[in-house]
Amino acid sequence: MRRRFQHVTIIGVGLLGGSIGLALKRRFRAHVAGVGRRQASLDEALRRGTIDEAFLDAAAPASRSDLVILATPVRAFEAHLRAIAPVLKPSCLVTDVGSTKAVVVASAQRVFRRGRCPFVGSHPMAGSEQRGSAFAREDLLEGTLCLITPTARTADADVAAVEALWSDLGMRVMRMTPAAHDRAVAAISHLPHALSALLMLLPAEGDLKLSAGGFRDMTRLSAGDVEMWRDIFLTNPKAVAAALDRFGRSLAKLREAIARGDAAKIEKLLTQARRRRQDFANRDV
Amino acid sequence: MRRRFQHVTIIGVGLLGGSIGLALKRRFRAHVAGVGRRQASLDEALRRGTIDEAFLDAAAPASRSDLVILATPVRAFEAHLRAIAPVLKPSCLVTDVGSTKAVVVASAQRVFRRGRCPFVGSHPMAGSEQRGSAFAREDLLEGTLCLITPTARTADADVAAVEALWSDLGMRVMRMTPAAHDRAVAAISHLPHALSALLMLLPAEGDLKLSAGGFRDMTRLSAGDVEMWRDIFLTNPKAVAAALDRFGRSLAKLREAIARGDAAKIEKLLTQARRRRQDFANRDV
Repeated sequence: MRRRFQHVTIIGVGLLGGSIGLALKRRFRAHVAGVGRRQASLDEALRRGTIDEAFLDAAAPASRSDLVILATPVRAFEAHLRAIAPVLKPSCLVTDVGSTKAVVVASAQRVFRRGRCPFVGSHPMAGSEQRGSAFAREDLLEGTLCLITPTARTADADVAAVEALWSDLGMRVMRMTPAAHDRAVAAISHLPHALSALLMLLPAEGDLKLSAGGFRDMTRLSAGDVEMWRDIFLTNPKAVAAALDRFGRSLAKLREAIARGDAAKIEKLLTQARRRRQDFANRDV
Repeated sequence: MRRRFQHVTIIGVGLLGGSIGLALKRRFRAHVAGVGRRQASLDEALRRGTIDEAFLDAAAPASRSDLVILATPVRAFEAHLRAIAPVLKPSCLVTDVGSTKAVVVASAQRVFRRGRCPFVGSHPMAGSEQRGSAFAREDLLEGTLCLITPTARTADADVAAVEALWSDLGMRVMRMTPAAHDRAVAAISHLPHALSALLMLLPAEGDLKLSAGGFRDMTRLSAGDVEMWRDIFLTNPKAVAAALDRFGRSLAKLREAIARGDAAKIEKLLTQARRRRQDFANRDV
């Protein structure tokens, strides 16, 4: 790492926090303190080697750290920031892995309202429907995208240091404003999760046994962590509601085309979706 | 095969027709005649070895067959049945691989309205978003489910023979009425396809590059064959519209819960979806 984060505190030792801990320990020999709410999760993280030390309270390890990473559900961030703000070293940076950014950045600006704001918002777009450090992998972030959301109060050097951190862990980084971030991920990530959960709940119990690979793929996301996703929806309500509204309108249009047997309209929609998907898949490779 | 289908005609030499041809040829040394609209598809099927002989017209090979399998988009079935009905041997059976059954069975009963009805409706729930015999695989059907929809006019021995065919190709078979079939697959298969296509079309072009694995999984189905899916929606309009309506109502409820910040309601819905998905995944294994 170009800027050395030798002592790191990770608050939240789940899949993402644990995977970052593993990568920092193994690749950069960082000393990683893990903070969790439940001793059982901390013990599991220690056993898996995703952290070096375990704490139920963040203040002590944060006071010795060069970097603190928030990796709990988003709505817990502000309380953690308040707990660590008074004890941080002047050079310490703080970042996060939350899936919404406007609320998170606003929290950080409230907590660090005077002087330097050591917080740089990050959203590593990695993870899966699996939970807990049992599924942590050193290479979970490898080849994925990390969105960085600096503000007018973020120092350029701090943004660069956080970008270097994620790059060193194998991620591509991209800067966006918090508001643009929240609008984009509402459509590309939060809406798909909502659709997956709603689809999982729709079929009659007896019909589930008829399902094939398509249903399984479409409902995989619905197994994701409940608290994490609850907080995502609660901290990005406007953009998610707008995405759900747009989806609802396109659903209603397709429903009308099907009900009146409009072959041309159905074919046009399916053709557009198929082409876009193929362009997208080709670009992806 | 318990009842020998030595000469088989498959109308439609795409992914599913081609995979069935491969399996019948390799496992049971059946002679497979393929019927297609385009010489190029037939040439490809011959090259891939999914069929032994190629025809642009079904009548000649059907007249020599013990079994005819309809594997084109569903709305073309009735014309094919009319073309082959006058020339079939008395012992010949006819089945299909269509994803809707009420319209298909009604077509067969119109075409074979006097005397014995040699048609037994089948829906092998296998396939993928890939198209054409280039993707055909001998084991595509292996371990998947085939829904069989006999009617009052189907002879028990014919149903048993068609069930034996699919079993011999490695499928589990299950009998349903055509109407029950159409309602069940509307929720479990047709709705997911509609959601996948609509989701693919929703994000702004620039936001697609931010997508991760979840979006890719959720949009995989949207790459599916356009004509096949157009015909599915057009031949199952009531049940698909009803499933889209139910989905639209649950979408609107979630949207309201998110807009008013109802944490308890969001958490309840996500918890129910997660549990159902986990039960489902466990049962699946």
